[in-house]
Amino acid sequence: MNYGENTAHMSAIRKRLNKSNYTSDDFSPEKGDPNLVRGFQGRPVGGIRNNVQPLQFYPSSNFVNYTDKDVDYLLKKLQSINKEIYNFEKLRKMSYKQLIENYSDSIKKGKYLSAYRTYEGAYMTNWEKFHKGIHQTALYDPKDQSINGLLRDMTNEPIIDVEMKEGGTQLKLIITFSDEGQALFKPMRHSRDYETLPDHFYFTDYERHNAEIAAFHLDKVLGFYRVPPTAGRKVNMTYDIKRLADRKLAKTFFKSPANNVCFHGACSYYCDTSHAICGNPDMLEGSFATFLPPEKIAARKTWRNPWKRSYSKHRKAYWEAYDDLCEKVKQRAPYNKGRRLLDLIDMHIFDFFQGNMDRHHYETIKDFGNNTFHLHLDNGRGFGKSIHDEMSILAPIYQCCQIRYSTFLKLAKLYVGPEKLSSETRSSLSIDSISPILTEPHLYALDRRVIKVLKEIYTCIEDGKPIDEVIIDR
Amino acid sequence: MNYGENTAHMSAIRKRLNKSNYTSDDFSPEKGDPNLVRGFQGRPVGGIRNNVQPLQFYPSSNFVNYTDKDVDYLLKKLQSINKEIYNFEKLRKMSYKQLIENYSDSIKKGKYLSAYRTYEGAYMTNWEKFHKGIHQTALYDPKDQSINGLLRDMTNEPIIDVEMKEGGTQLKLIITFSDEGQALFKPMRHSRDYETLPDHFYFTDYERHNAEIAAFHLDKVLGFYRVPPTAGRKVNMTYDIKRLADRKLAKTFFKSPANNVCFHGACSYYCDTSHAICGNPDMLEGSFATFLPPEKIAARKTWRNPWKRSYSKHRKAYWEAYDDLCEKVKQRAPYNKGRRLLDLIDMHIFDFFQGNMDRHHYETIKDFGNNTFHLHLDNGRGFGKSIHDEMSILAPIYQCCQIRYSTFLKLAKLYVGPEKLSSETRSSLSIDSISPILTEPHLYALDRRVIKVLKEIYTCIEDGKPIDEVIIDR
Repeated sequence: MNYGENTAHMSAIRKRLNKSNYTSDDFSPEKGDPNLVRGFQGRPVGGIRNNVQPLQFYPSSNFVNYTDKDVDYLLKKLQSINKEIYNFEKLRKMSYKQLIENYSDSIKKGKYLSAYRTYEGAYMTNWEKFHKGIHQTALYDPKDQSINGLLRDMTNEPIIDVEMKEGGTQLKLIITFSDEGQALFKPMRHSRDYETLPDHFYFTDYERHNAEIAAFHLDKVLGFYRVPPTAGRKVNMTYDIKRLADRKLAKTFFKSPANNVCFHGACSYYCDTSHAICGNPDMLEGSFATFLPPEKIAARKTWRNPWKRSYSKHRKAYWEAYDDLCEKVKQRAPYNKGRRLLDLIDMHIFDFFQGNMDRHHYETIKDFGNNTFHLHLDNGRGFGKSIHDEMSILAPIYQCCQIRYSTFLKLAKLYVGPEKLSSETRSSLSIDSISPILTEPHLYALDRRVIKVLKEIYTCIEDGKPIDEVIIDR
Repeated sequence: MNYGENTAHMSAIRKRLNKSNYTSDDFSPEKGDPNLVRGFQGRPVGGIRNNVQPLQFYPSSNFVNYTDKDVDYLLKKLQSINKEIYNFEKLRKMSYKQLIENYSDSIKKGKYLSAYRTYEGAYMTNWEKFHKGIHQTALYDPKDQSINGLLRDMTNEPIIDVEMKEGGTQLKLIITFSDEGQALFKPMRHSRDYETLPDHFYFTDYERHNAEIAAFHLDKVLGFYRVPPTAGRKVNMTYDIKRLADRKLAKTFFKSPANNVCFHGACSYYCDTSHAICGNPDMLEGSFATFLPPEKIAARKTWRNPWKRSYSKHRKAYWEAYDDLCEKVKQRAPYNKGRRLLDLIDMHIFDFFQGNMDRHHYETIKDFGNNTFHLHLDNGRGFGKSIHDEMSILAPIYQCCQIRYSTFLKLAKLYVGPEKLSSETRSSLSIDSISPILTEPHLYALDRRVIKVLKEIYTCIEDGKPIDEVIIDR
């Protein structure tokens, strides 16, 4: 809404906004359906409230209508309540990079892994530097040059050992590089433009190597730093894998009818001839995710996600049927104090952007106690459907009606632009050796999803929740 | 070659042709690679033999170059040797329908199933008439009106019982209709334009319901009458299947994320959630192949196909490595006398047209002894790759260098036109309730494959095999 055109009307609204206990009825345009981004479907016209222009600082695009009147309304409202902390004109003039930097300065305040505190080598490899740099508030410091070095190493270092990872449902390989760094390898299964079949469940989907790479970059772009450095690489299946494989793995190699080298390994899902992984003719793309330090140095704690899905085709999870899970979660440790509920919500926003429904558990590093970030491991089930936005992933947002202030500000910035989540992610992904990592429809989906998260915040506030209990600045 | 332009040259050639023991070197243009249809790739020019026009009676098409100089040469040669039995000008003027009818008159000469010889009901259903009509030389008489009636019945009759077929690798259902007729149901897995993945083996491929329907019509168009009547139909999965299913089958039903009804049944391959069969939202296409009479009335004998594949991703079959299998097969019963080797070759031509590599066994009806036709059952693995012609399916043709005269004449007719195998098959398929059954690329592939079979005959004769030992008229 362009309030500048209705100054009399605006002044009445401002008066009401100054009351902290405004009711949504006093102040809402017609109520938004959280499942619809009406901004995409054309803007209704007529009536006082609808007789408006898009705010001038929201640019248009050839691909997506980036403006949404509910979100426009929310931002204007916040700005008129508190221009100190919600100054979106100022936010627009600041670069996204600057905004992220402002927040990443604070991430270095936590402690480091105790085993590495006194560890100094005359010559440390990049993976050693990465391990040493893990600290309480983030997995790495984005300014640490060893992270880019690590991505390059995983792309270029000779592979000296290959092992099947035990226990997973789908085939994964543990790769050792010549500098003794290790990474988890997930092979390419489908071309980039393959979309998950509509009748497929999240738990039967193939994992996608490009989703793993994209998740690392997306997490970094969002200033979370909770995904281990992950790079794409083409390997020679015969030289880099079969030559180094043990008998159990090597005997699953064969030549396909198209004369490509294939293998299927051994695992509980999809490890048979009809689900083999095939090269072209022997070159295969995969994702390489840096290993975290071993358990004895950085033991991890596994947490069940309260918003875990049922992993059954017949049952729904509690939170899918009832809206009151958050009240219970809020009472319970570790979500009853500190950062953990907000981290959980960050994680769901991150997963919503990727379309990843497979976050059944997550981990933290034990050494850091409860006041630490969530590791965002295992992102291979994201980026399956570019045209679908799985709103249920946002359940913790719309059921708790909470978001971290810094996360909100990042999303608001990506809404007001000029940078977009798509352009930032595209640019970050472009350094990978097997780029493009995501198709354009997946990138544009990110921008659409930014708006959908903000609309949930709009709905929470329009429902009457106090702003400072929704957007939380700790 | 247009010999009319080189009369002096022609007369020299005719003289040589009149010798029965001509050698191929005397008479061959450059040798054709049986894996290449050079006619598709442009016609080389220059030199006496290449300075020719396509024969005028071979029409052109927007899609495929239907002429091939090796085949043109073969037909001209045969005609010049024996214009009585190889008169292609006359053949072109005769309709394909007439040609097929000429041959189908002879199929009724065999005996019928003994159990039905005295069976006369006051009112017989179409499937009873079909069973009664099975005779020694063909599964049905194409003029029998009950065949079209049976196709209509399977499309329209209420379904009264459903049972899973035991023992198969992929899910099949035994359907009983209200008139007590029974059919084997195979569900739709992929849309018509889905092509088999290049790295997939013939033995891991999904079966295709439309391939089953297409096989019935193709077999009929070719005047073989060796495939049981097969029709497509849309069923309501809830009403027509789940309602009638036993507990074991019913409990595999579920709703997909896209809210479609799905089920997977129980079988040794692909019977799990990630390979479920899903409707839209509960309507599902499938093929219905009429059951043959029960074992006690028409016991069947199963024969191992001598040109069976290895069904292993590591091994090749003998005939894939060596070219002398046919010499051994010809010595052995039942292929050492009568029609059986020619029937086997017919079957491989039929399978080559479909691209079906899955003919590990075939059956005959015991009652008819060894001098009877091959049943062409289980054709679900055909029509997977429209752009690929699997030449190895023709191994019995190029290793035995034999073809039945009537089959050769049908293919020659489909080559000289004006009817094409594509147009005849398209027209036959159009009566099915779920038509179109095949995409156009699959139909055009049939015309391309007709040429490829004829080129194999060309190669046999150019290699010096006596014509009457290659094209066999019994």
